[in-house]
Amino acid sequence: MSGYSPTLEALIEKFRSLPGIGGKTAVRLAFHMLNANEEYVSDFAECILAAKSRITVCKVCQNISDEEICPVCSDMSRDHGLICVVESAKDILTFERVKEYNGVYHVLHGLISPMDGINAEDIRVKELISRITGVNFNRNVGDGVLDVPQDGEPDEMAEIYNEIAKTKVNEIILATNSNVEGEVTATYISKLVKPFGVITSRLAYGIPVGGELEYADAMTLFKALEGRREI
Amino acid sequence: MSGYSPTLEALIEKFRSLPGIGGKTAVRLAFHMLNANEEYVSDFAECILAAKSRITVCKVCQNISDEEICPVCSDMSRDHGLICVVESAKDILTFERVKEYNGVYHVLHGLISPMDGINAEDIRVKELISRITGVNFNRNVGDGVLDVPQDGEPDEMAEIYNEIAKTKVNEIILATNSNVEGEVTATYISKLVKPFGVITSRLAYGIPVGGELEYADAMTLFKALEGRREI
Repeated sequence: MSGYSPTLEALIEKFRSLPGIGGKTAVRLAFHMLNANEEYVSDFAECILAAKSRITVCKVCQNISDEEICPVCSDMSRDHGLICVVESAKDILTFERVKEYNGVYHVLHGLISPMDGINAEDIRVKELISRITGVNFNRNVGDGVLDVPQDGEPDEMAEIYNEIAKTKVNEIILATNSNVEGEVTATYISKLVKPFGVITSRLAYGIPVGGELEYADAMTLFKALEGRREI
Repeated sequence: MSGYSPTLEALIEKFRSLPGIGGKTAVRLAFHMLNANEEYVSDFAECILAAKSRITVCKVCQNISDEEICPVCSDMSRDHGLICVVESAKDILTFERVKEYNGVYHVLHGLISPMDGINAEDIRVKELISRITGVNFNRNVGDGVLDVPQDGEPDEMAEIYNEIAKTKVNEIILATNSNVEGEVTATYISKLVKPFGVITSRLAYGIPVGGELEYADAMTLFKALEGRREI
């Protein structure tokens, strides 16, 4: 017997099931909930439920979004001809910190990994190809995937969608991680899209800015040498 | 713009509001929720709400409990004449790990701290005094605080309650922390209960088992010297 009530025990167990949360932290979080006011607690529960019920993926870039088209894709001031391909929606946040990037994104929701039984069909590669070729992309709009009124004024979302569909994709940046799965996925996509006349690029590897040579590992140093530029 | 949907942003914010959870962990936890199945998520939300709605405090020891009387107090094989007084319900878990302890507890839900405006009335001292003197303790049962049927068979909880009320308290262990607030609270309670012929004790301070003298701070060493025992 732990001396705790079953209800509290259940809450502690739930917190412990979260990634990176150990036993002691779970107890602290459960007690935090217990001591918090009614409103905070019901808000918290509501937010968790909303995450599951309200959030969908953007019809264009597969980013996590409340809308059918996410804020990044709806922003027509961005360059829709430049697509940065990332593994997960989390990576978009990282890129958005770099204020200079003005292109759009494509979220794969995974990487090709034959070892884990994850093939190209299991991640959002075909959606990326649709964006590049236009096939199956325009069709979605009239297909009822987006709510386009059959008569009367055209829907605002459908208008944005059509405009995006009209833009030719010039370049895709394959910004997957530099592990085996990331490299395999990047190579696979690169080969797939080259016939469509799309430039494919990979992020540069090298010594981190502010990093010291002394602490660079051999692989990073090798990549830095390989990618050296004339000055 | 972070590139995240407002719903996801709200969930991240909620996780960030938890004690000891930083920005990156909050993002990780929010994505964990997003990728979890429907059942897990609704279970999680339910547990949080239950913590607020279902959990109450034990009428005897003020421990957090689902029942009117907590499992520790309901256990009549324990020594109800020995009460370990602790600051918070969390401390009970710590003591329960020591399998040898067979007494019961009393949770103060805070410590006396005049600096923070917390006086003896703000913590559960009077409930402890009730347990020792029996005044206001027995009365609760007939008072409708516990659901005692007016006629017919006596309630099981009320029976346990009456039995506890009959047990004389012999000793209280003041197991508050060894900081200023802990010491003040222990001294205050000790002076209050002495007239009732109750033995009051404090936990022993000294070198931790397995600890090395070299690393002991001066205060601990002083306490260890002070509390030295003949062998």
